[in-house]
Amino acid sequence: MDYEAFFTGELDSLRQEGRYRIFAELERRRGAFPRATHHIEGDLRDVTVWCSNDYLGMGQHPKVLGAMHETLDRCGAGAGGTRNISGTTHQHAQLEAELADLHGKEAALLFTSGYVSNWAALSTLAARLPDCVVLSDAGNHASMIEGIRHSRAECQVFAHNDWRDLDRRLTAIGPDRAKLVAFESVYSMDGDIAPIAEILDVCEAHGAMSYIDEVHAVGLYGPRGGGVAEREGLMDRITVIEGTLGKAYGVMGGYIAGSNAVCDFVRSFASGFIFTTALPPALAAGATASIRHLKDSNAEREAHRDRVATVRARLKAAGIPMLDNPSHIIPVMVGDPRHCKQISDWLLEHHAIYVQPINYPTVPRGTERLRITPSPVHSDGDIDRLVEALSECWSRCALSRVPAAA
Amino acid sequence: MDYEAFFTGELDSLRQEGRYRIFAELERRRGAFPRATHHIEGDLRDVTVWCSNDYLGMGQHPKVLGAMHETLDRCGAGAGGTRNISGTTHQHAQLEAELADLHGKEAALLFTSGYVSNWAALSTLAARLPDCVVLSDAGNHASMIEGIRHSRAECQVFAHNDWRDLDRRLTAIGPDRAKLVAFESVYSMDGDIAPIAEILDVCEAHGAMSYIDEVHAVGLYGPRGGGVAEREGLMDRITVIEGTLGKAYGVMGGYIAGSNAVCDFVRSFASGFIFTTALPPALAAGATASIRHLKDSNAEREAHRDRVATVRARLKAAGIPMLDNPSHIIPVMVGDPRHCKQISDWLLEHHAIYVQPINYPTVPRGTERLRITPSPVHSDGDIDRLVEALSECWSRCALSRVPAAA
Repeated sequence: MDYEAFFTGELDSLRQEGRYRIFAELERRRGAFPRATHHIEGDLRDVTVWCSNDYLGMGQHPKVLGAMHETLDRCGAGAGGTRNISGTTHQHAQLEAELADLHGKEAALLFTSGYVSNWAALSTLAARLPDCVVLSDAGNHASMIEGIRHSRAECQVFAHNDWRDLDRRLTAIGPDRAKLVAFESVYSMDGDIAPIAEILDVCEAHGAMSYIDEVHAVGLYGPRGGGVAEREGLMDRITVIEGTLGKAYGVMGGYIAGSNAVCDFVRSFASGFIFTTALPPALAAGATASIRHLKDSNAEREAHRDRVATVRARLKAAGIPMLDNPSHIIPVMVGDPRHCKQISDWLLEHHAIYVQPINYPTVPRGTERLRITPSPVHSDGDIDRLVEALSECWSRCALSRVPAAA
Repeated sequence: MDYEAFFTGELDSLRQEGRYRIFAELERRRGAFPRATHHIEGDLRDVTVWCSNDYLGMGQHPKVLGAMHETLDRCGAGAGGTRNISGTTHQHAQLEAELADLHGKEAALLFTSGYVSNWAALSTLAARLPDCVVLSDAGNHASMIEGIRHSRAECQVFAHNDWRDLDRRLTAIGPDRAKLVAFESVYSMDGDIAPIAEILDVCEAHGAMSYIDEVHAVGLYGPRGGGVAEREGLMDRITVIEGTLGKAYGVMGGYIAGSNAVCDFVRSFASGFIFTTALPPALAAGATASIRHLKDSNAEREAHRDRVATVRARLKAAGIPMLDNPSHIIPVMVGDPRHCKQISDWLLEHHAIYVQPINYPTVPRGTERLRITPSPVHSDGDIDRLVEALSECWSRCALSRVPAAA
């Protein structure tokens, strides 16, 4: 077996399919978001980032950075151990209390990332609940799919956001088995939002546990940033709420919130929680500061909504096709992988605008897109430049536009 | 199904078996390591930590903290996206180059943790190499076991450190299949070191890929901190070297180093790499500073060896039983879960010494232990107090001692 030849051959196949990824090397500039320095072939160029998941710019908020600096000075860099062996710090305990409060739950449990929180919590719950069957939304994130797969529990995929399909499946499974329904609130690539109340009605009717991923919603929705479920007054009906500290909160890490028992159960049995070094205390302190700020302040959420609405209106006026959705994510639809990459390259080279092309397998073939994430740090001038540049690309590639009115 | 009752019941079983874990809530004091503040029931108490994996105290090193402060000020808190979508920063690129150089490899690939690096790299390699069989050392870490399990490739567990057993198994498998041999250099709980050269001889004789986990060795062994394989001049014979930034380097994160092709392959196909927010740039910068310092400076490694030898000699003189090994990890053997917990509690309460008890399932029943990790930040006085306190515990519990001479 020639391993090198195998790896090289697989990479060549990716290149031929246009799926080989080249990472843009950036340096975000604190205090000047969304501006970043693009390192390319030894050159440094200014760019405006339009595809960050630091949705509110909290990664440069003085309270967040202040808490991180202070904790670095006080406690040092890393945690120095797993949570069980010297790695639980006061900052972790504070953050878990803050997260439990955010979601109105008894407890919360931190993980090193949102990916790990989904993978570890779902694999542990599905593997250990006796004879468990998992009902997984067809649009679920890779981290949920891998966690469910790892559990080796039976998994049924229900049609995306289709609570009627979920209801039929739960009816067929019958009342005796443990049932875990896993879904998201805001779906990352289409930006659509789940019918949470209807899904919970179905879960309750069938005695199923509910597990919601709110990673693209926490900090952004709800009067205190608790997510879509908070906005809709549904948090208390959900068994497990999963979220991230690496998107709207601007730092890093993931978590679940739920009852004391469910969090303690995952804490006690999840390999991906137990056998890994804890988050650095400075990250925990930064995340706590970010959550606290966004519990009290609606200014960022309001500015965010305003920027999203403005970008949407301007793109609509220019006839640029977007996927319609009720969230903050604006998928500009290109529908062809080469055009998508060309437009992204053109924006970067000629307009200093960075939007990563999203191609298969992240989205289905034929739905290639530019996923635009406006944020309070984008000015009116930034929006003007984005829309004009996109409009130019649409003309250059002779892409079809949406008629002005309907 | 009463989910809450199920979780509570499982937790009660853990309590009855003496396996329920209570985390100690600490605040390490930067500049005063190994001292920390123990938060317990509203009280604050000074303790000396003797079980951290920040083996060299790099978590408080001015160069590490300086790089982190500087990068926080320059780039902000989080990366703001996955590596592909706006989350690759200049600091990640620098760190990966530093890691490739550390191990004399063409490339390196960063992950959010050592756990994720093992899980994602092993699951991707084993799943995608055609008809792959994995040979896994019986002592391998949970992250490796879960990664191999996730791949669903055939896995054979070979006897711990037994290259003859490995050889027999590879002979039986025959030359036609892809073979991946996964093992560690320093095993965390026993502190024993693998016969790396013999294992590599066997791998090469059978055309197997070799994958070594050096998480308890990088920074600590080898003239530049490249690990046991560097010390023994073996790095160039290993296909993939995996390591962590969260132990001797004092920060957080994990990585693999290898050829351009193998790193690019994992980069391109590993779900646990692709679909997760990148490490904060400040962590990457701190880790780079730590690696660079330990490439040039042997002072920390020399002081570490001296402290380990001193603790070992003092414990031996006191007749405290230890597992003999050639590494920096000192497993003090208690052999009973209740005594182990009692001693740990007594040390904390009466001597302000914190060593977490290690019980089943982390170690086999009957081998319960205190895992002591001396570091350059432990003074002679700290060692005196540790040995005297342990000696007192041995008398109180009427545990048997090792005869003075042999």
